[in-house]
Amino acid sequence: MIEGVKQQKWWGWGEEGHAYSAEGKPKFAPFVLKMTGLDINAPIKPAPKFEDLTVPPSILGDELRAKLVDALGEGYVQDDDLTRVVHAFGKGVRDLMRVRRGDLGRVPDVVVYPADEAQVAAVMDAVVEADGVVIPFGGGSNIVAALEAVPGESRPVVSVNLGRLNKVLEIDEQSGLARIQAGVFGPDMEEQLQAKGWTMGHHPDSFVWSTLGGWIATRSSGMQSDKYGDIADITRGLRMVMPGQILELRPLPSTSSGPSVREMVIGSEGRLGIITEAWVNVHRIPEVREIQAYFFPDYYAGLKACEEIVHSDAKVMMARVSDAIETQYIMANGKETKSKVKKLASKGIQKLMESKKWDLEQIAMSFIGFEGSANDVRYQKGLVGKIVKKHGGFGVGSGPGALYDQKKYDTPYLRDYMLDRGLVCDVSETTTPWRHAADLHRKTTKAFNEAMERIGKRGVVFCHLSHSYHSGACQYFTFVVNDDTETAERNYDVAKRTIQQSFVDHHATISHHHGVGEEHSPWLEQDISPAGVFIQRKLFEGVDPGNNLNPGKIIHDGEPGITSNSPR
Amino acid sequence: MIEGVKQQKWWGWGEEGHAYSAEGKPKFAPFVLKMTGLDINAPIKPAPKFEDLTVPPSILGDELRAKLVDALGEGYVQDDDLTRVVHAFGKGVRDLMRVRRGDLGRVPDVVVYPADEAQVAAVMDAVVEADGVVIPFGGGSNIVAALEAVPGESRPVVSVNLGRLNKVLEIDEQSGLARIQAGVFGPDMEEQLQAKGWTMGHHPDSFVWSTLGGWIATRSSGMQSDKYGDIADITRGLRMVMPGQILELRPLPSTSSGPSVREMVIGSEGRLGIITEAWVNVHRIPEVREIQAYFFPDYYAGLKACEEIVHSDAKVMMARVSDAIETQYIMANGKETKSKVKKLASKGIQKLMESKKWDLEQIAMSFIGFEGSANDVRYQKGLVGKIVKKHGGFGVGSGPGALYDQKKYDTPYLRDYMLDRGLVCDVSETTTPWRHAADLHRKTTKAFNEAMERIGKRGVVFCHLSHSYHSGACQYFTFVVNDDTETAERNYDVAKRTIQQSFVDHHATISHHHGVGEEHSPWLEQDISPAGVFIQRKLFEGVDPGNNLNPGKIIHDGEPGITSNSPR
Repeated sequence: MIEGVKQQKWWGWGEEGHAYSAEGKPKFAPFVLKMTGLDINAPIKPAPKFEDLTVPPSILGDELRAKLVDALGEGYVQDDDLTRVVHAFGKGVRDLMRVRRGDLGRVPDVVVYPADEAQVAAVMDAVVEADGVVIPFGGGSNIVAALEAVPGESRPVVSVNLGRLNKVLEIDEQSGLARIQAGVFGPDMEEQLQAKGWTMGHHPDSFVWSTLGGWIATRSSGMQSDKYGDIADITRGLRMVMPGQILELRPLPSTSSGPSVREMVIGSEGRLGIITEAWVNVHRIPEVREIQAYFFPDYYAGLKACEEIVHSDAKVMMARVSDAIETQYIMANGKETKSKVKKLASKGIQKLMESKKWDLEQIAMSFIGFEGSANDVRYQKGLVGKIVKKHGGFGVGSGPGALYDQKKYDTPYLRDYMLDRGLVCDVSETTTPWRHAADLHRKTTKAFNEAMERIGKRGVVFCHLSHSYHSGACQYFTFVVNDDTETAERNYDVAKRTIQQSFVDHHATISHHHGVGEEHSPWLEQDISPAGVFIQRKLFEGVDPGNNLNPGKIIHDGEPGITSNSPR
Repeated sequence: MIEGVKQQKWWGWGEEGHAYSAEGKPKFAPFVLKMTGLDINAPIKPAPKFEDLTVPPSILGDELRAKLVDALGEGYVQDDDLTRVVHAFGKGVRDLMRVRRGDLGRVPDVVVYPADEAQVAAVMDAVVEADGVVIPFGGGSNIVAALEAVPGESRPVVSVNLGRLNKVLEIDEQSGLARIQAGVFGPDMEEQLQAKGWTMGHHPDSFVWSTLGGWIATRSSGMQSDKYGDIADITRGLRMVMPGQILELRPLPSTSSGPSVREMVIGSEGRLGIITEAWVNVHRIPEVREIQAYFFPDYYAGLKACEEIVHSDAKVMMARVSDAIETQYIMANGKETKSKVKKLASKGIQKLMESKKWDLEQIAMSFIGFEGSANDVRYQKGLVGKIVKKHGGFGVGSGPGALYDQKKYDTPYLRDYMLDRGLVCDVSETTTPWRHAADLHRKTTKAFNEAMERIGKRGVVFCHLSHSYHSGACQYFTFVVNDDTETAERNYDVAKRTIQQSFVDHHATISHHHGVGEEHSPWLEQDISPAGVFIQRKLFEGVDPGNNLNPGKIIHDGEPGITSNSPR
């Protein structure tokens, strides 16, 4: 470990000592039992001990090591087992299952911590000259297997941790632009920006454990993208270290300088180089920020309301609607309130739903966020309120929204808690045009449930609409398979493949904001057509003829459908 | 000519018989005289006769011709002189100057008019197999030399006119998406959309004489991009014919499927293939559409107001501010009113300006557009009105805006009128972050004026802010050089180069929405850095190893700074 560079657990999400707890949530255990057949109070199988792992030895040669030490200093070239294992993969549930049974895959041979762009360039040139492999590493929260070397990689593998490039370098207050180093984690970046009255407004679920460079390299999108845009909109300029040269794209609001090099770097997942800094749109912290909660009679009414909102005069910061099961999950995961007022309010809401003759098994909870001046927020809430009402919904105030806002980054810890108990949880997210949104939800849910029946396992899938655009929306699916036997990885794989196949079969993309990595590469041709993959391949081959830059990601050339983290 | 496929004049803008007229504009001649020293009433030198041209013979071989005829039918393979000359270049002022003196450059050997995607593919494959050159042709309004073969091209050159692909194929009313063929001209497309209550909202100056495919291939942006977005935002999916394969990108609101292939095709200017159709965002025709006119004490106050508008809660459909000289041009180009009310109003405005002690030589005219429900437009106008006032401006109602709206596509005809009289007019447009916007205007104006002094010619440059973004704006410069001698092209070139160099020297891009072509390629490295050009080059070389697809555009490999249409 390097001082000032945060590091996640080697076996799970986030920092050591921080975990999910079901305490004070009496409805949680019954919910899990009902949905998956799992008793969360049964004895658990916690993660193994680090000492029990067999870490393959580093094959970094002396000559390359010497060059790296020469460029960075001894302390910033680390090849101890723990550091190497932490950098061996991201935090996909496959990664977590594998590490729990001691399958570490192709562990990098060394981890380097450059201090600045010149050092990144020195590393890049030394590794490429030695015909090694360069894998950039930000927060390590990737869940599409983009951080792991391909199985059997015989060349030295160098993981480049950007954690020391963690500063907001400059704010152009007139343009609303900030120049920020790529290795900064979400909270550190926002702290530096907010100290001066600014925010980037980019809040993916991984925010606490992901970095600006990682967001750009994977085409991230945050919960507030309805207002702030995807990372592709936010990123206006950048610098990237390539073998022997540095790409510099100056910050521009828009340009017609040929095929967009900016949009080639965004989503390149390390295959074109290492992003060192970016110019991003930043905004003054708004006077008012409110997240209102609403209920709809069912998910599809909520979808229609979101569709109508983006096509109306209204503007929102976020709009989120959970389907029936996710709504039940949210309720079950809430702490029991001791406040009499809250209990009464909750009763009142239930009575209102009953009076409307809603099917309580179908209700959908929604959070819609507003930002701006007090007056504008009032105006927008009014516009949205009318649309919600038209679709049969009603508002329940800002209390639940404030709670959601507080807890929004905690979900990944639940995954480890569940893995301890033999429940495999994962997520897949996608976008479709509005026309196909409801159908996608129905068909994907159905396909998942049929797959579970086929393999004879209990499982559950639920979903929320998370991001809206003029032409469609992102739907974010969470799915769970109850299997703690040796078939767990294979059965998980069935679930994951079923969902991804349903996406491409129903007018949806392989991923809205998690990227391709090796995980989603088997579906890439079905998404962007063979000619699209051909174009990407030519780009990668042309820029990186030696295949030194994070090979195997996005386009995987091994056996079809078999990726570095396929079940074995 | 092909029935149903519109064709511009071979020697100038737009359709035969349509021209600029200064009639009824008593202030126009004095304005031109004052600014440029030119008397527009002096004898003119009109465009030459077609019979006087020497058109180089076609080198299309019999074998390729036979294949093309086989694929399309005899009538859709045309190699008569007029058709070839019309397709020899776009409508840059260099093109117009050259054609007036009979320099036709490398005229294409044949023009083909495919009826559908299969025919486009047949043409593509036949030409590439014969090692010919494929140049896609839409409305022919390109002004950056993207439609002309490189000088001395020894292979057969085939211009592919997409004009028969002119239908709106499908409207997805739920998603606000339309599938439209690439060869449709702006007015024909909007007519088909508006008949069903929809609009794309994309209105570049070239609208009447440009096509959807051309907009995508050049990264176009329309006057209403503040609301509707650039073509890169509007285009959600597309199909492109490449040698031996067809790219299909399904319509998606957003995706993280690696480097964006969509954003590689947008702006590719024919170097990756021929776009045949696209899925684009379309919107219901708004209930209310209003363009309000405002005056500011000077251009820089107007710039600041636009900056504040995009950073406020307000949303506008467009915001345009003209600098002092452009404001005077607008006034001088207006028809003399006979209405007493208008005369009085005009007097009233002048009195108000005088009472505010404005320098009448500095005033800046602005048009700001609003769309939405009547209520929302009222609300947005209120927000904008406060910002305008804060920056010293005031509104003068919607009369001038309605006039602007009517006449907005007419300006290019003025260029031919001026060329008849020995005045060379051209445009260059760019974006910068807000921080550099005012400085860019001052420095570029100064550089132009100094260049004119250096060459001893009268000239004038003026400008308007045309598109606003969160981080900056597009400024659109018009410049004029008074030279009708044999040095005209060389002196024009000095002016154009001075302006482009000022752009890249002052944090601005080579073009906001006209593209690169050969015209802007000399500055590409200064804009996107040598590594950016390297990336684009590798993309082009990988996809088109035989260099058959519109070679020489965007990246030009000849003598530095010497492009197909450099002065000779």
